[in-house]
Amino acid sequence: MSEGIRLAVVGATGAVGQQMLKVLEERNFKIKDIICLADPREAGTEIKFRDQAVIVQAAGAEAFKEADIALFAVGTDISKELAPLAVANNCVVIDNSYAFRLDDGVPLVVPEVNPEDIQWHKGIIANPNCSTIIMVMAINPIHRAVGLKRVVVSTYQAVSGAGIAGLEELRRQVDDWANGREPAAEVFQYPISFNLIPHIDSFLDNDYTREEMKMVWETRKIMHAPSLQVAPTTVRVPVYRSHAESIALETINAITPQEVRDLLSKQSGVIVQDDPARNLYPMPLYCSDHDEVFVGRIRKDNSIENGILLWAVSDQIRKGAATNAVQIAKIVVEKGLY
Amino acid sequence: MSEGIRLAVVGATGAVGQQMLKVLEERNFKIKDIICLADPREAGTEIKFRDQAVIVQAAGAEAFKEADIALFAVGTDISKELAPLAVANNCVVIDNSYAFRLDDGVPLVVPEVNPEDIQWHKGIIANPNCSTIIMVMAINPIHRAVGLKRVVVSTYQAVSGAGIAGLEELRRQVDDWANGREPAAEVFQYPISFNLIPHIDSFLDNDYTREEMKMVWETRKIMHAPSLQVAPTTVRVPVYRSHAESIALETINAITPQEVRDLLSKQSGVIVQDDPARNLYPMPLYCSDHDEVFVGRIRKDNSIENGILLWAVSDQIRKGAATNAVQIAKIVVEKGLY
Repeated sequence: MSEGIRLAVVGATGAVGQQMLKVLEERNFKIKDIICLADPREAGTEIKFRDQAVIVQAAGAEAFKEADIALFAVGTDISKELAPLAVANNCVVIDNSYAFRLDDGVPLVVPEVNPEDIQWHKGIIANPNCSTIIMVMAINPIHRAVGLKRVVVSTYQAVSGAGIAGLEELRRQVDDWANGREPAAEVFQYPISFNLIPHIDSFLDNDYTREEMKMVWETRKIMHAPSLQVAPTTVRVPVYRSHAESIALETINAITPQEVRDLLSKQSGVIVQDDPARNLYPMPLYCSDHDEVFVGRIRKDNSIENGILLWAVSDQIRKGAATNAVQIAKIVVEKGLY
Repeated sequence: MSEGIRLAVVGATGAVGQQMLKVLEERNFKIKDIICLADPREAGTEIKFRDQAVIVQAAGAEAFKEADIALFAVGTDISKELAPLAVANNCVVIDNSYAFRLDDGVPLVVPEVNPEDIQWHKGIIANPNCSTIIMVMAINPIHRAVGLKRVVVSTYQAVSGAGIAGLEELRRQVDDWANGREPAAEVFQYPISFNLIPHIDSFLDNDYTREEMKMVWETRKIMHAPSLQVAPTTVRVPVYRSHAESIALETINAITPQEVRDLLSKQSGVIVQDDPARNLYPMPLYCSDHDEVFVGRIRKDNSIENGILLWAVSDQIRKGAATNAVQIAKIVVEKGLY
């Protein structure tokens, strides 16, 4: 660990924070010092990183003085409080929360889509919403090729989107079910085992959830497509990990399903799994722990002149959060933007 | 059981057949003779109906001579073989399979939508696909009010859509999971526990599944809307019972979400559950064992001029199959169409 940057992970004990450390290890990210930060109540916990035992410290201004880049994997309120402290101490923040995503002064980046936006950061770079990352990975190549007019998307979101507590709640409820107990709902509004909850994040005045509006607002910002129309419905499903999305695209110019397959096959970070004759299509059970977005069920939408239907699945803790943040960090380092 | 008709249930031991018997009991359907038919291997099984023990008989021409109406809850091949035998013996068939649904000489009926089509039956009346019934219940009132141009629908379909074997497969896989065993897939193409499978029924040449094309073809026939455009994606989810559907409607004339709520509230067979402020929206866990289609998450679709988004959930064994068939039978009896 002599060569490289000084990197902090804020929220190192959470589902995304832990995954960030794992992705950093896998990718042999050059790190001189790794600093694991979390809630003061978790200070003192030991985390293994490579061959090292790292002691978790309470997140605060002092810690950021020792870091060049900090990956934030904490809630919006904590990001709002801590990110300015990090920036004031010359630490570049890559923030996974919603806090700064729509801020005009903050780039919102998916490296395969808009890496150029990293250049103009002013200390904070925002990591988009997980469902949004998965969708833009699948649709941006099509937008670049033929232009997108409208996207209708229905999501099938795993419980780990709510972190370790979400995972544990489904596990506990399945166990309750197996033992004839009434499942208790704490993390989600209702039991999620063997159920579907069409409610993620809070409801807004327009009767959309914030999760749904993130897919409208963030998609436009990432893709630099302010007039792109998005109609989202987001739904929690009893799957542990990896989100799925049923996507109907209306394009400006015509494109065939085979052209879409060819385009997406060439897109780094996307894997096309689309062969109905062999029952080949993406499924969350087989996408988890992978970094790519898997796309299949690519068909002509016969209900409009220029329409394409597709089905995208990806591990939302990885490409939807941790991997995307680490990819951004890599570009920041390579371009010396810290 | 002195007053009423002579009624046969074909496939009386299956998930839908059993539910038909339950719905007939609940609705106090006037039955003089109940005849339970099934595969010869199941002949001799005893089924309780009201205060009676009914012995299951092998389905065949002889049995139909004793029946005025037969509710068929068997696969397409068996329906094709047995329904003509029933008709030849003056027994009116209400068939739940796909066998006759698109036949021009066979009415395809959802009683709340096109009861008038029952009048012209020639011995067989087809009961539509479960996902299609649920969808048309939710969208037909809107079509009648302002006209529908296009429907984009993504389904979240319960394992019981594949009958008792589907239910048992999910139970077994959850048990495998709880005991650290690899889940075996027999009914579905892959494990369905904690997974999503975007594949229901078989794939067709256009890369849609037959389940998806049923939602196109059957919707047009039931609603008498040959030019209605439908873009479906059908997905199996780890839910025991009740299908859900995320539906995006493009209407010809404008309609507000409140007008949709008012319209659907007045529709018999539909219950509006739509109050985000109170976390009120339909969920499969709470719709099972009910006859109605529950609709919520009704919003303006801001991505087009005249758009409405909604979320519909219903017990597909009841309104999606058994209840709808019993409703048809009731009209056949009341109008003396047997």
